[in-house]
Amino acid sequence: MSAGRSRPADPEWIVGVDVGGTNLRVGAIPFAGGAPVEVMHGKTRAQEGAKATVRRIGAMVRKVAARVEGEVVGVGVGVPGPLDRKRAMVLETPNLGWRNVPLGSMIADETKLPAVIDNDAACFALGEWWMGAGQRAECLVGVTLGTGVGSGIVLGGRIHHGASDAAGELGHTVVAVGGRRCGCGRRGCVEAYASGPAIAGRAREALAEGIAVAPSVLGRRDPGAITARDVCAAAAAGDELARIVVQRAADMLAVALANVIHLLNPDVLVIGGGVAAAGRFLMGPLRTGVERRAFASAVRACRLVPAAFPETSGMVGAAAVFRQATGAAL
Amino acid sequence: MSAGRSRPADPEWIVGVDVGGTNLRVGAIPFAGGAPVEVMHGKTRAQEGAKATVRRIGAMVRKVAARVEGEVVGVGVGVPGPLDRKRAMVLETPNLGWRNVPLGSMIADETKLPAVIDNDAACFALGEWWMGAGQRAECLVGVTLGTGVGSGIVLGGRIHHGASDAAGELGHTVVAVGGRRCGCGRRGCVEAYASGPAIAGRAREALAEGIAVAPSVLGRRDPGAITARDVCAAAAAGDELARIVVQRAADMLAVALANVIHLLNPDVLVIGGGVAAAGRFLMGPLRTGVERRAFASAVRACRLVPAAFPETSGMVGAAAVFRQATGAAL
Repeated sequence: MSAGRSRPADPEWIVGVDVGGTNLRVGAIPFAGGAPVEVMHGKTRAQEGAKATVRRIGAMVRKVAARVEGEVVGVGVGVPGPLDRKRAMVLETPNLGWRNVPLGSMIADETKLPAVIDNDAACFALGEWWMGAGQRAECLVGVTLGTGVGSGIVLGGRIHHGASDAAGELGHTVVAVGGRRCGCGRRGCVEAYASGPAIAGRAREALAEGIAVAPSVLGRRDPGAITARDVCAAAAAGDELARIVVQRAADMLAVALANVIHLLNPDVLVIGGGVAAAGRFLMGPLRTGVERRAFASAVRACRLVPAAFPETSGMVGAAAVFRQATGAAL
Repeated sequence: MSAGRSRPADPEWIVGVDVGGTNLRVGAIPFAGGAPVEVMHGKTRAQEGAKATVRRIGAMVRKVAARVEGEVVGVGVGVPGPLDRKRAMVLETPNLGWRNVPLGSMIADETKLPAVIDNDAACFALGEWWMGAGQRAECLVGVTLGTGVGSGIVLGGRIHHGASDAAGELGHTVVAVGGRRCGCGRRGCVEAYASGPAIAGRAREALAEGIAVAPSVLGRRDPGAITARDVCAAAAAGDELARIVVQRAADMLAVALANVIHLLNPDVLVIGGGVAAAGRFLMGPLRTGVERRAFASAVRACRLVPAAFPETSGMVGAAAVFRQATGAAL
């Protein structure tokens, strides 16, 4: 932090933190809005416990803060839920293995800065609304395709949290009652078809079943090591089996997105997350599927687009949540 | 209208109109809120054309207005969509058979009162929010079970219309990809399982298939004449076949409601419409299905209740829409 500025009435930066299952991302976002600067990457290593992760986050926040000119007024953190925003508490994260972690106060203690937390997919959606592909949208739904399928709903520039901070669980909406088993224990959730692990798993099954006429490049790999990224890359390169698998995932995701369009009639649907980043190839079949499955007028009214900033919108949106918590509009 | 009052600054009544596929309902609602009075019933007879229906609506509005003490300031109309609210235009209603009908201006011409229109299921939801089972809910979803499955979403006391006035199409959200054929031409929509005609149709099939051990009372009827109302009544009376049919419909509806809970995390879900009125019996299996299918914390946060005023909330909500159009909050 530079010495020349000290008036709290003259805030300049918010540090945004994106706590992923594997990676940490930290950067400084102008309080007034703008591209993130001094973006740093780290490893979450959640299995070492929340305290160790918070120490790493604290060190990154301090580094980022030291590098920017001007005052840092606070920290916004995006983290997988479910969580209790009021108490800034992570209740349970299957991906991180944490339970009842008071993440907000831990990060505030570590950084000596006020901190707020919000759901990571909601932060992604708000980040894309604030400075990405969905600026000024009245109703934006941001979808993250990764280890899970998440989503965030932004209405009039504010995250729709719902009655218990649990809104946006797109991944566990059912598209095929009695269908494939999901990680949540239920059947037919879209996550069981369109998450990264689901795509990789389906590719392994397809190899075993021999569903393609031409031999697949994926057949040369150790089946256990195949990732969704590999499948998307192979599909983009024209591999038949990979294309069939991606097509199927896109089609099931299209059912879920068409359901969102039927229910909410959003003006923007933004697709992000690791799988989407690896597979822009997804967007084509996704668009076709949605057009086929939702009412034409609602499809026409909705821009279905890839994230403008798939890597940083979560972090930027977390900063936006902090900004809103100060009472400032975006 | 009484002669003693004439200042437009002293409004007292709004006439609410609910245009159903079969029935018209018209009543006067206090501008300040309160139970509807002078409620009249009529037949829509949409097949005679919009003009004839509007003439009947006009006569009913004038009668209701003449009966109340005080000034009537306007008319709110709930009507099946899709519609264009700004132009107060019904674009297309499969149930009424109308196309591009400027219903708002036609009713205004007929009644010499300002008129607004909105989607009937949205009006139902807003009516239940204003004076029914979901008062002061932050996020209320109202579901109407009838010839179709409709819904309205009320957020912070306002209808969520979406980008093209098409939000709330719960009936066409897919719960079983590749499943039963829906009236919309697609497959697996919840309306293909839980609407009145779907329940009646399934009962006819079940009779033909002989799925129950005990003979059904419905077997004594002309299969073509069986209605959802009959099926619900038989189920409530303990008929095994009817119970199986209602259970299946409730279970598929529960999938769709669980999807709504996952996406929106509402604090209230209100069930109304003709089928629900006939079958309070539905609520039990519906609740069980939702509890089984949605996350416990979100289910706990949501009151799943039958409509407080299944007959009149559409009309009351239409009046609420008019009230909001004047700039007054509810």
